[in-house]
Amino acid sequence: MIRVGVNGYGTIGGRVADAVTKQKDMELVGVTKFTPDYRARLAVDRGIPIYHLDADGKAKFEKAKVPTSGSLQDLLKKVDVMIEATGEEIASGNKAMYEKAGVRAIFEGGEEHELTGFSFNSNCNYDGAKGRKFVRVVSCNTTGLCRTLHALKTNFGVKKARGVLARRAADPQEVGKGPIDAVVPDPVTLPSHHGPDVMTVLPDVNITTMAIKIPTTHMHLHSLIVTLGKKVTAEEVVAAFQREQRVMVVEGKSGFKSTSHIIDWARWKGRPRNDVYEACIWKESVTVVDDNELYLFLGVQQESIVTPENIDAIRAMMGTTSQAESVRMTNSSLGIAEPAK
Amino acid sequence: MIRVGVNGYGTIGGRVADAVTKQKDMELVGVTKFTPDYRARLAVDRGIPIYHLDADGKAKFEKAKVPTSGSLQDLLKKVDVMIEATGEEIASGNKAMYEKAGVRAIFEGGEEHELTGFSFNSNCNYDGAKGRKFVRVVSCNTTGLCRTLHALKTNFGVKKARGVLARRAADPQEVGKGPIDAVVPDPVTLPSHHGPDVMTVLPDVNITTMAIKIPTTHMHLHSLIVTLGKKVTAEEVVAAFQREQRVMVVEGKSGFKSTSHIIDWARWKGRPRNDVYEACIWKESVTVVDDNELYLFLGVQQESIVTPENIDAIRAMMGTTSQAESVRMTNSSLGIAEPAK
Repeated sequence: MIRVGVNGYGTIGGRVADAVTKQKDMELVGVTKFTPDYRARLAVDRGIPIYHLDADGKAKFEKAKVPTSGSLQDLLKKVDVMIEATGEEIASGNKAMYEKAGVRAIFEGGEEHELTGFSFNSNCNYDGAKGRKFVRVVSCNTTGLCRTLHALKTNFGVKKARGVLARRAADPQEVGKGPIDAVVPDPVTLPSHHGPDVMTVLPDVNITTMAIKIPTTHMHLHSLIVTLGKKVTAEEVVAAFQREQRVMVVEGKSGFKSTSHIIDWARWKGRPRNDVYEACIWKESVTVVDDNELYLFLGVQQESIVTPENIDAIRAMMGTTSQAESVRMTNSSLGIAEPAK
Repeated sequence: MIRVGVNGYGTIGGRVADAVTKQKDMELVGVTKFTPDYRARLAVDRGIPIYHLDADGKAKFEKAKVPTSGSLQDLLKKVDVMIEATGEEIASGNKAMYEKAGVRAIFEGGEEHELTGFSFNSNCNYDGAKGRKFVRVVSCNTTGLCRTLHALKTNFGVKKARGVLARRAADPQEVGKGPIDAVVPDPVTLPSHHGPDVMTVLPDVNITTMAIKIPTTHMHLHSLIVTLGKKVTAEEVVAAFQREQRVMVVEGKSGFKSTSHIIDWARWKGRPRNDVYEACIWKESVTVVDDNELYLFLGVQQESIVTPENIDAIRAMMGTTSQAESVRMTNSSLGIAEPAK
């Protein structure tokens, strides 16, 4: 059993922690939580041990009558791998703590590639994580792009990729964030960081990206324009996506008219927190112009697409399981469909 | 004096009618209105004669005590040119009426190019309208793209243009339209009609577009990726835009952080209805990758960018004025800055 701890039972950490409890080869030793809020109480309800961060945290949790099982330092003594999900302001500073404790750690996409020297995507470079102490799982958008480009690169070659990312401005509960009625070029200076971030996983892909922030909460929507290495048909491209792990080809004619329809699918499917682990590509959008210039729409659920990536990254670092087997186990536990053969 | 009538004092027609009243060489004979609502009363306040569409309309206006000056048929007898702005469901059907009345007519971008056989953009093909009975002024997005591509084509050549349009889902008063919290690929099938529409004005430009609908009301935001005919620098491209008529180069560092900041500029500038007649290009976004691949953000105010185009189109059809002189007159009357020399 791989003993896993999660530092930060929040947007990413909460999802990964819950997913760890579904893995036969993993034990969720515990999670840390900063505030004894409803999410903390839900963790307790699920039987997940909570660890406080420090003496102040201990007092807060005692006052709120939310039981804890000890401190972060106590947790570190009992785990093989920590998921570091406290967020961009704190996470990188914790690396030294993990080093000292002799614990492996997985950082998330908000951190710089240089922090770990290795950026992970299960489809692209699972084997490269073997034996590493520190791994960074790339961000939601980079994950969606990596899966998409992996399918294109391995099947057709990629000469040049261009992406326009329409980013959800806030997660549903982030009620203080805007904009309400505006499009924000973000950043206004080009290119956006997403292209270079993809290249931390796929260094030989030439990609340029630009991003805008829009008043939605549910998913990011990418408009991709990719010059492929050879002449292709839209049907060949769709077939390549249907063979790629964790890519879901959705159809407008089946009711997937918008990002919200994908979220509605997840709600009706019974996914926890309406999570969408798959990179979603609209079948009808897949279009080839001038023989090899591919256009498509790609939807990325910002909170959940990296959940299976974190689970795979744990096994990849520990070196316990092959990529194919890990993906099979993770997919099966989370209800992700296996691709067409 | 060119005698002008406007069929439909609405989103486009109302703006063009008000602009006609500011032209020294034009007389606004009157406008038609379907409903005696607050917009009709505002027209009366401005001294604009209103004409009803039919007997039903006459009764409606009488009941509401909004004075009218006669019927559409009466109006047709007094004008040289009609602005046909009743909207996509009705406009094309009115062509025969104008033909019978011997009146020139300008149709808007919601109509098909084939309706008039000539699609107008002042910067690109003003002289082609001379003597024509029917002209179509292209839509807001096509107008923004035409001005931008005209600057690029005439300065550097355009090998291939690619646009991703994030379209405002509704105008501010369209309270029944969605989405509220979703991105809608619109259409999900690629390419969108905008590329072919640009080619009705610039037939030798190879352009492919895709469009999404987002929950904003103020402006469209284009992400453009254009392969130019030669190696350029970002500075050269910005200078070309600064020389182009009705292109406004805005800077994030001057406070133009989003589409809403452009609207706020128009409000503080004193523009009627916070109109933005200019195609707005973010200076910092202008970026050249791989020697000749240009990236930029372009903002288009959907309700007002075609106002000066309609005014120019009137003069172009009548053959009374050169392009340079018409643009100077229109710009001066609407407060549009002349470009750098």
